[in-house]
Amino acid sequence: MTRSILILTTGGTIDKSYFDALSEYQIADSAIGSLLKEARVALPFRIVELMRKDSLELTDADRALIAATAREAAETRIIVTHGTDTMTETAKVLAQEVPGKTIVLTGALSPARFAESDASFNLGLAFATAQVAAPGVWIAMSGEVFDGLKVRKDRDAGKFVEVD
Amino acid sequence: MTRSILILTTGGTIDKSYFDALSEYQIADSAIGSLLKEARVALPFRIVELMRKDSLELTDADRALIAATAREAAETRIIVTHGTDTMTETAKVLAQEVPGKTIVLTGALSPARFAESDASFNLGLAFATAQVAAPGVWIAMSGEVFDGLKVRKDRDAGKFVEVD
Amino acid sequence: MTRSILILTTGGTIDKSYFDALSEYQIADSAIGSLLKEARVALPFRIVELMRKDSLELTDADRALIAATAREAAETRIIVTHGTDTMTETAKVLAQEVPGKTIVLTGALSPARFAESDASFNLGLAFATAQVAAPGVWIAMSGEVFDGLKVRKDRDAGKFVEVD
Amino acid sequence: MTRSILILTTGGTIDKSYFDALSEYQIADSAIGSLLKEARVALPFRIVELMRKDSLELTDADRALIAATAREAAETRIIVTHGTDTMTETAKVLAQEVPGKTIVLTGALSPARFAESDASFNLGLAFATAQVAAPGVWIAMSGEVFDGLKVRKDRDAGKFVEVD
Repeated sequence: MTRSILILTTGGTIDKSYFDALSEYQIADSAIGSLLKEARVALPFRIVELMRKDSLELTDADRALIAATAREAAETRIIVTHGTDTMTETAKVLAQEVPGKTIVLTGALSPARFAESDASFNLGLAFATAQVAAPGVWIAMSGEVFDGLKVRKDRDAGKFVEVD
Repeated sequence: MTRSILILTTGGTIDKSYFDALSEYQIADSAIGSLLKEARVALPFRIVELMRKDSLELTDADRALIAATAREAAETRIIVTHGTDTMTETAKVLAQEVPGKTIVLTGALSPARFAESDASFNLGLAFATAQVAAPGVWIAMSGEVFDGLKVRKDRDAGKFVEVD
Repeated sequence: MTRSILILTTGGTIDKSYFDALSEYQIADSAIGSLLKEARVALPFRIVELMRKDSLELTDADRALIAATAREAAETRIIVTHGTDTMTETAKVLAQEVPGKTIVLTGALSPARFAESDASFNLGLAFATAQVAAPGVWIAMSGEVFDGLKVRKDRDAGKFVEVD
Repeated sequence: MTRSILILTTGGTIDKSYFDALSEYQIADSAIGSLLKEARVALPFRIVELMRKDSLELTDADRALIAATAREAAETRIIVTHGTDTMTETAKVLAQEVPGKTIVLTGALSPARFAESDASFNLGLAFATAQVAAPGVWIAMSGEVFDGLKVRKDRDAGKFVEVD
């Protein structure tokens, strides 16, 4: 059984960049690879870019693809980088569709390309959770590891909070 | 029992800064508080600065102080930021002296004040380990969560590796 | 006569930030003050925020206000931070309306809040131009000091170029 | 006559990095090329690394080499990156040995590799000075363009100040 971690990128704020020629922000090449290099990660990992979407634009078909990729992968420890607005919806789908694996969703409230961002910390949080937590779906945000089925984003407060 | 995480800072590369007036690098005010703010950590935590030392300069008395502070604290989940060269020696002392708590040592190979540093990621790694791992002593470095008694720093390779 | 430099901020990419609660980028509190502190600027300066607009949204009334503020100011050395798309239009208005002062327009192709940005360098470029150049209107972008009436933005190439 | 700018790097704080394997800071590969790329400089330039020294270690022979390289170069606009402690001594040598060229010395009080540094701003300051200032020797530091023969570093205040 492989120790390697699989990272599925789907877009979201963590990968937003600014394109001057368009005068707008869009989701760009994923910054995850650079962040892991900067973090001097020596544990084996594999990055697969599945889509580049704001999480409000994710469809049922997108979630089915994320789940199928996670289920079919050789890796049993999987991180999904994801926009924060619908992270909990994807968590529900993964909990139903991918049994027996440790899956961690994470993202960022501030883009990884910003000088000040929660991206690197959150990715570290997700890496440890993927290694240490039991099989199931987890959300690693706001400095905390949540049960993926018992958490919601409090948009006004800018943080994730546990729910009963 | 408190959910709060206790962070003990002891110095090391993670907190090195450059002082132009002295033309030298020294350990400065800990950057940990700023990193956690940038990471938008909402989980309660408490930071105690124990010392500002290169880990090669840590004495038995220093290690005894770290262990006593960890043991006496109300918190059962504790992170120790530490220089990397003697991190495993402190891990041994903590394993003997502080039973029943989850203790995670972390640090950085590149100072937190650098534009490119492993500090934020490693701190995220330590935060999740402190929440998820069983009681014991852990080292969170190089993207990996190690048993604190079964790891060494490979200085030439610039990473931590498991030992038998 | 004052040595102090006046900095008028009008918005543009240099001051764009990302607001997670809105899932969009907007022009935020100006980053100019922080950049000058980080640059350890000891020369006296004064920052006046005139507006927070994408330069495509600037009106004739906005340009009249920029010109009037520059003309009435005690300072004879003035920097205007500005979106890049219509920087040359504002330069023309300033050349007509504000005689006898050294005015430098600058901005950025990448937001100042990004880890990688041309903002600090461009601001340095503008600071020296304001001190050294003759009265007139200058554009400081792409590493170059241009006559403000003989330059255009080449949007596809992502740079400013001299015109005859 | 070439418009191109020649950049001579000599070391100093601006290029200091931290080497974990040595537990010490040393002058590393120059960061100047990366800074100019990040600044999206389109003006032609050429970088020559002359030495990697703390400026307190520069010898008369080193200064003679800097002067000879500046004098013999095809470029008439030259930037010298330099440690700040003896920047004014090198300025005197260049003023005597290299007539008819615009030479600008700059550096940084905080290393370019730090997240917060005056390096990019100072390099922008130097770039504009090299283009706009009259032939002579200039020091571009602390947000100001100084006559290279009428300035000193106030080490305690952490800034350069004009002298009579």
